[in-house]
Amino acid sequence: MANHDALPLVVLTEQFAKLPGIGMKSAARLAYHVMSMEADEVEAFAHALLDAKKTVHYCECCENLTDQSRCPICENPDRDSSVICVVETPKDITAFERTGQYNGMYHVLHGLISPLKGVMPDDLKIRSLLRRVQAGGVEEVIMATNPTVEGDATASYLSQLLRPLHVSVTRLAFGLPVGGTLEYADEVTLYKALENRNEM
Amino acid sequence: MANHDALPLVVLTEQFAKLPGIGMKSAARLAYHVMSMEADEVEAFAHALLDAKKTVHYCECCENLTDQSRCPICENPDRDSSVICVVETPKDITAFERTGQYNGMYHVLHGLISPLKGVMPDDLKIRSLLRRVQAGGVEEVIMATNPTVEGDATASYLSQLLRPLHVSVTRLAFGLPVGGTLEYADEVTLYKALENRNEM
Repeated sequence: MANHDALPLVVLTEQFAKLPGIGMKSAARLAYHVMSMEADEVEAFAHALLDAKKTVHYCECCENLTDQSRCPICENPDRDSSVICVVETPKDITAFERTGQYNGMYHVLHGLISPLKGVMPDDLKIRSLLRRVQAGGVEEVIMATNPTVEGDATASYLSQLLRPLHVSVTRLAFGLPVGGTLEYADEVTLYKALENRNEM
Repeated sequence: MANHDALPLVVLTEQFAKLPGIGMKSAARLAYHVMSMEADEVEAFAHALLDAKKTVHYCECCENLTDQSRCPICENPDRDSSVICVVETPKDITAFERTGQYNGMYHVLHGLISPLKGVMPDDLKIRSLLRRVQAGGVEEVIMATNPTVEGDATASYLSQLLRPLHVSVTRLAFGLPVGGTLEYADEVTLYKALENRNEM
């Protein structure tokens, strides 16, 4: 924004531009929008920011985000605590919950091992996962990291740590997306679909 | 977001989703991002929101956003106060200032006449524009609203109000965008370019 703009607007624009996926133009648009909001709406927004940051933290069991000491999934006695699905982010839990087909527990790593980005195993929530498995009662750990180089590397690393603990370590299946067509599938996906073919 | 998410996160997501151009998925991504920010960064963001809303208001002369009683453009004695460029939003001023070629004043309408959206002339900053022109010293008013149905209608309406005040009322030129090609120009733009052709 040009320097003839009111300074508090420039500051607000810069704050919006720090958010992921929001460039300077979108940030300026959002800052102008805030100007057109009612004062109590802006206060509600600012309060929601502070409140979320203050009250939401990691679940002491699965590292999911929660405003309690343990998240509702860990607290739910109807869920199967013998299966742990390991994901990269809390958002991935939302995706699994939407399927309505998974009744086990989760564990959020909060990242993937990536030496290039300076993310080492110690930066992830791996120790708390190992503690959960060592505490007993876990039969299967599902590696549900993304099918990327970093996701695969993290899954491999974890499976090496987990196998000595006598749990079954599995990985999500890769293949054609349901509703997709062969024509538009990339080579690697098609190869995985062929490799993992099932008896009909 | 599913209802197993921490409530303050759901509230924050809903707040982000109220912003223009941000859907529920992006809003959830932004809310999760806020969780990964440092507490003092979140406080700076919330403070910027409140501060901008509290201190920024309309310039008493041109209705641009400012944290003073008059904006820096109206306060600048080097600018030509005999020309007023009428725009829809404060963002449009930024666009004109970027050209570095305009040295007159501005007037922000904060909207366009749109009976379908329930925006009537009284909802716009038209009275303050008429007062400025009536106060004298203004020779030209440039209608710089967008070349849309609403922008054209607002420009026509204003020119009818302004003409009895003995000022010259002009409209931005429409034609081919510089660097554009005939092949990709729409019919209306091409017709305008032909109609407004100039002697070489």
